[in-house]
Amino acid sequence: MKVGIIGLGLMGGSMAKALSGTGKYTVEGYDSDGETLRKALSSGAVARPLTKDGLSSCDIVVVALWPQAAVDYIKENAQNFSKSCTVIDICGVKRFVCESLYDTARENGFVFVGAHPMAGYHLSGFENSKAEMFKNASVILTPYENTPEKAVKTVREMFLDIGFARAVISTPGEHDRIIAFTSQLAHVVSNAYVKSPEAVEHKGFSAGSYKDLTRVAYLNEDMWSELFLENGDNLVKEIDSIVEHLVQYKEAIENGDRGRLRSLLREGKLLKKQIDG
Amino acid sequence: MKVGIIGLGLMGGSMAKALSGTGKYTVEGYDSDGETLRKALSSGAVARPLTKDGLSSCDIVVVALWPQAAVDYIKENAQNFSKSCTVIDICGVKRFVCESLYDTARENGFVFVGAHPMAGYHLSGFENSKAEMFKNASVILTPYENTPEKAVKTVREMFLDIGFARAVISTPGEHDRIIAFTSQLAHVVSNAYVKSPEAVEHKGFSAGSYKDLTRVAYLNEDMWSELFLENGDNLVKEIDSIVEHLVQYKEAIENGDRGRLRSLLREGKLLKKQIDG
Repeated sequence: MKVGIIGLGLMGGSMAKALSGTGKYTVEGYDSDGETLRKALSSGAVARPLTKDGLSSCDIVVVALWPQAAVDYIKENAQNFSKSCTVIDICGVKRFVCESLYDTARENGFVFVGAHPMAGYHLSGFENSKAEMFKNASVILTPYENTPEKAVKTVREMFLDIGFARAVISTPGEHDRIIAFTSQLAHVVSNAYVKSPEAVEHKGFSAGSYKDLTRVAYLNEDMWSELFLENGDNLVKEIDSIVEHLVQYKEAIENGDRGRLRSLLREGKLLKKQIDG
Repeated sequence: MKVGIIGLGLMGGSMAKALSGTGKYTVEGYDSDGETLRKALSSGAVARPLTKDGLSSCDIVVVALWPQAAVDYIKENAQNFSKSCTVIDICGVKRFVCESLYDTARENGFVFVGAHPMAGYHLSGFENSKAEMFKNASVILTPYENTPEKAVKTVREMFLDIGFARAVISTPGEHDRIIAFTSQLAHVVSNAYVKSPEAVEHKGFSAGSYKDLTRVAYLNEDMWSELFLENGDNLVKEIDSIVEHLVQYKEAIENGDRGRLRSLLREGKLLKKQIDG
């Protein structure tokens, strides 16, 4: 099976390495940066550069670009995919990407399936990519109503082949709503956390809790500012929600109201227990 | 060297096990719950029950109770410690505990040193205690100006003997200010995080960031409500600070201001990099 990968950064590079490593897929790749492409070729992650002709013979095309660039690429190349090709993106927002591309795919006779691999790393670029990136991770797939089952099966199998433990089927709307909570809010809170005036002098005073809360504060601001704006409605709701709750604890503390504070903490504890089982 | 431990819960129990394990310390212990004391004795964590007579021959007494109970215990037993005894508490707040006890110690001729081991676990009780609890952790010590150096050295050595990697000398005021940020705020934010309406249905949509952000949401609400109120001034400042910052991201998103959002994220990223080196 021939897979074309557009964009050989952290995620595209890792997928190239993982797919090539299976022996089941032949990977052709493209990156707008010639040096990155050269590295991908010489490392064996990519068998050949992906040309326009090569694109038309791919069984699967993975567009591993940021959302706006992924949409632009797929629209510009809509006529270059074969009719039996399944094109996927791997962006962290799905309404923005999928809603405009479902039509493009239908009109041009290829299949498009939105995908979001729940894996990553705080550093970007091909040099940080690795075949083991997806070990035991989830991938979320957001096919549309009329997506051929065969295409979904092929994509699902490809993800399982490279280490994913499970594929979760969702809709773009559900995906964006939940991901605003599980991932985007985590990055905002973590990035805000380190802005306390105490942050710079805390050395020697921190245990695991500080470390956990701030792990994802180090992020690619160009990519995340795009992702946040493309899911702004959901993310604003999540920020409002956590702020509202934080203020409740604060007021209980200001009022010296131990009963209220205790019940706020107990409520969170029981939710955590319920959620994680 | 004979160490008396008052309170054989998670922390006191772990210290008892770790100290006994060194072979260098003889541990006598007391717990208001007879069953806990019996378990501590039969497991070998404690050599003998600590009697009132036994207390007066301890070289070190570790009071492993919550703050108010620790203060009460030490005041009530102020005349029962030997003049060469060093008494320590291990509470997570230091002004509340230390400020009233420095006088008690001076008036009664024993030495008191405040300590805060930066280690823990989300479940409490002797049944969750373990000798390895303190491996590579920091302990913060808050001696007062006139604390004999010898006593600080003895306490420091005891902590290093049971696995701590370092002892950091601080003041109660500095400790409480920084700990409000590194530990207390982390518990508040984590506990607030799981209160989003999306929390209960996120399964299959979460990667490491959700897990990290909510790890400490499961907490002992009785203990933490006491700790938060005893450090309320500092903790309220920290909650105000993170809320103020969260609102800045939110406004940038609402305004669709990518430049502003990008610079807020970049600021956090650079701080995280600067702080962690």
